[in-house]
Parts: sequence; C-alpha cells; structure tokens
Amino acid sequence: MQTELTIRTRGQGLYEFTPEVRDWLAPVEKDGLLTVFVRHTSCSLVIQENADPDVQTDLQAFYSRLVPSSDHPSMTYLRHTYEGVDDMPAHIKAVMMPVSLSIPVRNGKPVLGTWQGIFLFEHRAAPHSRKVAAHFA
Amino acid sequence: MQTELTIRTRGQGLYEFTPEVRDWLAPVEKDGLLTVFVRHTSCSLVIQENADPDVQTDLQAFYSRLVPSSDHPSMTYLRHTYEGVDDMPAHIKAVMMPVSLSIPVRNGKPVLGTWQGIFLFEHRAAPHSRKVAAHFA
Amino acid sequence: MQTELTIRTRGQGLYEFTPEVRDWLAPVEKDGLLTVFVRHTSCSLVIQENADPDVQTDLQAFYSRLVPSSDHPSMTYLRHTYEGVDDMPAHIKAVMMPVSLSIPVRNGKPVLGTWQGIFLFEHRAAPHSRKVAAHFA
Repeated sequence: MQTELTIRTRGQGLYEFTPEVRDWLAPVEKDGLLTVFVRHTSCSLVIQENADPDVQTDLQAFYSRLVPSSDHPSMTYLRHTYEGVDDMPAHIKAVMMPVSLSIPVRNGKPVLGTWQGIFLFEHRAAPHSRKVAAHFA
Repeated sequence: MQTELTIRTRGQGLYEFTPEVRDWLAPVEKDGLLTVFVRHTSCSLVIQENADPDVQTDLQAFYSRLVPSSDHPSMTYLRHTYEGVDDMPAHIKAVMMPVSLSIPVRNGKPVLGTWQGIFLFEHRAAPHSRKVAAHFA
Repeated sequence: MQTELTIRTRGQGLYEFTPEVRDWLAPVEKDGLLTVFVRHTSCSLVIQENADPDVQTDLQAFYSRLVPSSDHPSMTYLRHTYEGVDDMPAHIKAVMMPVSLSIPVRNGKPVLGTWQGIFLFEHRAAPHSRKVAAHFA
C-alpha cells in the first residue's frame, strides 16, 4: 500500500504531518511497517516532541547556527552558492537528518511514543511543496 | 512479527543491545528485514563499533561538545530549558542521529558487519527505561 | 529478495551507486520497499543531489571542518587514535549520517526525486571495498 503526501512549507522550520499519516493508516487495522521517504535533497523527516512548540523553535535555532548561510564569514569555502545562501546549508542539513523513517504499526496505529510526532523539517527559506512517499506492508 | 525491548540506561552514553536482537530473531531462520524504532525523543539508535570501548567514550565526548548543556554560554538562545540542562541538547541530538534502523536478515541473522553492534545512545543524564519497538517481516 | 553490492572507494567523498540499485530492481516490475544497509562503521549511505558535483565537494568540506582529524588541536580529547587520524572522525560521522535507507519502489523503480541519487559517503582516507546489503520486499 503506497501513497504520496504533499506538505506545503512557508520557510525554515518543522511541519507536523502525524495526522495525515494516522488518517491514511487508520482503515488498515493491521500490523505492519510504515515507511515515509521525502523526495527532496533540501529538507528532512524527523521524529520530535510535539508538546512544547519551543522545542521546534530551538531545533531550528541550533541547526541555523551549526550550518550558517553560505554568505556567513565561516562558510566562504562553499562553491555551490548560485541557488541562494540557504541552498547549500540545506543540502548539508539534509545529510545530517533522516530522509526516510520506518515505524512499526499495530492495528493500523504507528507505535509512536506519547510525545512523538512526525515532522518535515524544511531547510529552505522560500515556500515549497514537498512530496513524501509513504509505504505500508 | 513484532516485540518491544526495554533498555535501562544510567546516564549519557551507548548501551549495546545486539544480543537481545539476535536472541529474538534466532528462532526465525528466515530471510527478511529487521526494523528497530525507539519510542522517545531524547535518545537515539546507532550502529557502531563494539570492539574498542574507547570509541563509545569518544563518541559521547564529541557530541557533548557539539551540543553543550543549555547552561553553556553558547546556548543562551535556547527556550525549552525547564526540563533540565540536558533536555533540549538531547532533543537536538535525537534529530541528528537515527530514531529507526533497518537491517536485512539472512537465515534469522542480521547481516551486521564484523565490528557492528546495535546501540541505544542515551542523551539524558538521569536513569531511563527506554522502549524499542522491533519489527521483522 | 536480497543482494550485496560492493562499492570501491579511493579516499573521502561521495560515491554514487544509483545505477547499480536501479539495475538490480529493474527486472522486478513490482511495488515494494527497497532497503540498503552499509556493513561498516566508518562510512555512511546518503541521498543527495547528483546534478552539480560541487554539492558533493561542499558536503565533504563542511563535514571535514565539523569533525576534524584527531591530530587537530580541538580533538586532543580523543582516545581511539591508533587506527589513524581519520578513523575516530569517521566513526563520529557514521553516527551522524544514515547507515540504512528505505525507499518505496513503484513498478520496479525507486521513487527518488528528480535530483536524488544514492551515495556511499566514505569517511576514511585509504581505499576501501565497502559492502552494502540490499533488500527488496
């Protein structure tokens, strides 16, 4: 069973799509394995706390400092700069965080912990329409 | 085939659970795919060398420096600090390292390389009981 | 369906093996899930842009700075140094980037985005022969 989800982003940050995943799996009522895979090289899929929104703000703040824009004095060695100052840092972050996640499913429900949500982490500044391939078996 | 393993941790560092995984798979004697998924947002699952224990010490030493405590002068921008100085750094590391691992299995044996072990990487200082969902198909 | 691919590396950097994966899957003509898993602790599997080769150069440049050689003044705390100055940094990077990737497959084709390629990211300086286990179901 496969589908493709579309996540619309409006700048860097985390976008939760746990409800879309739950809705797609709910009719299944079976055990299995869910895999989500993002079809882009400048955003990531992460599991994180969905209780306190400050966690998401802090995550973005940390990674913006760890991988600064390509116009930052510490990043002058970068060559791939013609797609924008946020583009090569986005590729760097996309290597550091997951492109695919696999989650066991029980009775049609992903076995997420109490505070775990599934997020797309957008690393580009401009709005994007992101495609996430989902597979269940 | 699914189960849930419990890993008890006593502070930051790597805890190997390869034997528990091997024991669970051994009766299977089939080819397939093993997936492990940790149901928490402040620890990770990693594959690493299980020969020289200094590797594990060094891994923890590096990541403690890369993501310091939230009371460190370089981390004053963090907002999510009320759950302890090690909590937000734990979330940051949990985004940087895997939450799920998928390993092909041959005749009931995960095809790990000679020096590869499966570890839970605990990012919190206090003892925790960590739940790892395992799926084989 | 399982196989093992061998990727020969000649120093640090990214080695694309998307064609080998496509060739193996092509006769299948079915939907399913592809998983690749690298059987080593000093290299990684990543999905990245395969259009502009500068992206690969920049990725390596960034990670070499983030995790310098163990003879760098900032890395004197490392203990596992007897296998070479690039060995412990390789383990550190292998924890930060994926060891396994799972990609949905449609009609025998992995649903990679337009610019996505599958790469082995070699973290060691010396030539290596790397084993990648592949699973399709």
